[in-house]
Amino acid sequence: MHEPVISISRRTRRTPFSSRIEAQGVGGFTVYNHMLLPTFFRGLEEDYHHLKRHVQVWDVTCEQQVEVAGPDAARLVQLMTPRDISRLAPGRCAYAPLVDETGGMINDPVILRLADDRFWISLADSDVALWGKGLALGLGLDARVFEPGVGPIAVQGPKADDLLSRVLGDEVRDIRFFGFAVLPFAGHPFVVARSGWSKQGGFEIYIDDAPGGQALWDALFAAGGDLCAGPGCPNLIERIEGALLSHGNDMTLANNPFECALDRFVNLESPVEFIGRDALERIRDSGGPDRIIRGIRFDGAAAPACVEPWPVLRSGAPAGQVTSAAWSPDLATNIALAMVERSAWDPGTPVSVASPDGTRDGEVTTLPFTGR
Amino acid sequence: MHEPVISISRRTRRTPFSSRIEAQGVGGFTVYNHMLLPTFFRGLEEDYHHLKRHVQVWDVTCEQQVEVAGPDAARLVQLMTPRDISRLAPGRCAYAPLVDETGGMINDPVILRLADDRFWISLADSDVALWGKGLALGLGLDARVFEPGVGPIAVQGPKADDLLSRVLGDEVRDIRFFGFAVLPFAGHPFVVARSGWSKQGGFEIYIDDAPGGQALWDALFAAGGDLCAGPGCPNLIERIEGALLSHGNDMTLANNPFECALDRFVNLESPVEFIGRDALERIRDSGGPDRIIRGIRFDGAAAPACVEPWPVLRSGAPAGQVTSAAWSPDLATNIALAMVERSAWDPGTPVSVASPDGTRDGEVTTLPFTGR
Repeated sequence: MHEPVISISRRTRRTPFSSRIEAQGVGGFTVYNHMLLPTFFRGLEEDYHHLKRHVQVWDVTCEQQVEVAGPDAARLVQLMTPRDISRLAPGRCAYAPLVDETGGMINDPVILRLADDRFWISLADSDVALWGKGLALGLGLDARVFEPGVGPIAVQGPKADDLLSRVLGDEVRDIRFFGFAVLPFAGHPFVVARSGWSKQGGFEIYIDDAPGGQALWDALFAAGGDLCAGPGCPNLIERIEGALLSHGNDMTLANNPFECALDRFVNLESPVEFIGRDALERIRDSGGPDRIIRGIRFDGAAAPACVEPWPVLRSGAPAGQVTSAAWSPDLATNIALAMVERSAWDPGTPVSVASPDGTRDGEVTTLPFTGR
Repeated sequence: MHEPVISISRRTRRTPFSSRIEAQGVGGFTVYNHMLLPTFFRGLEEDYHHLKRHVQVWDVTCEQQVEVAGPDAARLVQLMTPRDISRLAPGRCAYAPLVDETGGMINDPVILRLADDRFWISLADSDVALWGKGLALGLGLDARVFEPGVGPIAVQGPKADDLLSRVLGDEVRDIRFFGFAVLPFAGHPFVVARSGWSKQGGFEIYIDDAPGGQALWDALFAAGGDLCAGPGCPNLIERIEGALLSHGNDMTLANNPFECALDRFVNLESPVEFIGRDALERIRDSGGPDRIIRGIRFDGAAAPACVEPWPVLRSGAPAGQVTSAAWSPDLATNIALAMVERSAWDPGTPVSVASPDGTRDGEVTTLPFTGR
């Protein structure tokens, strides 16, 4: 059967780099924040090996920024996350769950503090600008919430420092993990952060609508021939190995940060005011969550794509669901992220996974995955 | 070149009907409200002729409902739209622009009033639940805002009454335009509205997670053989002919309802309180909008897909942009929806359209398109 194509229109926005990645042979797309996100080039496994060995340049423009600016900006951003952002200094980034009044996960962005009164929220896939704007308007806060049309490209892989330093200078080597610097290219200043949605190391460079962005993209490929620099994108296999959660896949509004094993980003001990504090305190005080995200290794041939959650069973009884799955070439097994009930969440618990092509034997593991 | 496929995961949610339309030969998808929306089956033109002659069953589950319920529900829904919904009786639907504090278009849903204190907002593609929830929380309103997991299937085309009456009874013939009835099927009550995103007439049937929904789908195909009932979806050509606007394509948050020619849904004369009233009054009082959505007919071979706006020029000077375009077989010309500046918006104005394969001569028209 022929696989359905993606139909593209203005609503599923193209990026400044779409024409380039089409010429570079992109094989698939998804839509993320109303924008195109490439999903593979030569194939999931080929892309995976290349990412773990060399360096890739990614069009992740779809990680659009929501800017919050003004006298009440810090108060509004704090209201939106249980992570204490009073500790976040200008020039630093923080991964932060955003939750609603029930403690449900609205998004799990990286927040960049550009100045005391100015933030970028680097989005996963939901309209956080509408949420923030509704809150600001309803509460009468003096903060502007808008999408400035800024999204990153990423340079990811073990040779990322080598590649980016050739284009932006050796200053990039001094950027600390989850820190950022503002570096010039083609006469334009770019925010360059040491971050990215892989565990291979690298950078995200925030691109606005200035023409320098495309020149920077081209310069990276021109400079990277001997480094085997190639086009790429977030890789399903690598991100499951590294336990990088995908909002909408591994957790939804129906899940709280404890279920997502994000406890260290829930600063209930800090005297900060945020939406959902009561709900999260209730969950903490009543014994914690009833389920949690774990890894599962499971047997059999390479797993098909997980397009809908798969039941997880312990001794035949429901014990959770697999939300992302792939064959890991390096671990030589199938691996999955799964929301696992308390009855089965101890690492080592034997479970079965009801994949569409049959039930497989598996075992609950800690995260991230590691070689045996 | 091979067209990129769509990569599907839990985040781009499948619907209760996805397996059925895959078996029925769906050719393309887009993502709408984080959910799959089919874009063609046998091809845009074949689907178009079939829709205008026979009857189609559509999986438009992606038009997800946002439910607003509680003592302050009517107040909150009214705050979200400049259309006076105090006149909307239970059992009735209303097309309604939703705007932000600048008057910018957040969404253009159909609102169903289920009861005095309970509404469904049948969404275009943006997270209105987050907007509504932010407002409710900020303002301290006593209204629940949530997504109940309800989305419609549609029965569209000139034989829609004939088909649906065979399955749900002759009561469907009595449903007025933009009215709805609650009708039983397989022991389950379904909201059935005379509405839908085509100009060929028909119904939308709101499906929750009850199993009766899939049985209803199957019954429609079982009953429709001699009516040439077939699978379908909103058709780009037909919806441009009929001037059905697509939020994200033909207008965005940067546009106000006057620019979208939605004046009749902006009830500034009513003493109702809504967000953006000041902004819309300012626009009205300062001479109205500077641009407006018009039709354009243009020459040449069948236009390519409009994946990014195309410049519209008058005498070589910028005069707007085409946002949706297609070849109309019945009108035997290319047609487009375009945001046209005041300098060119008079019907009959000659313009040129800078499509990717060359500049075409065209003419501004009123909407909807009609045969010459």
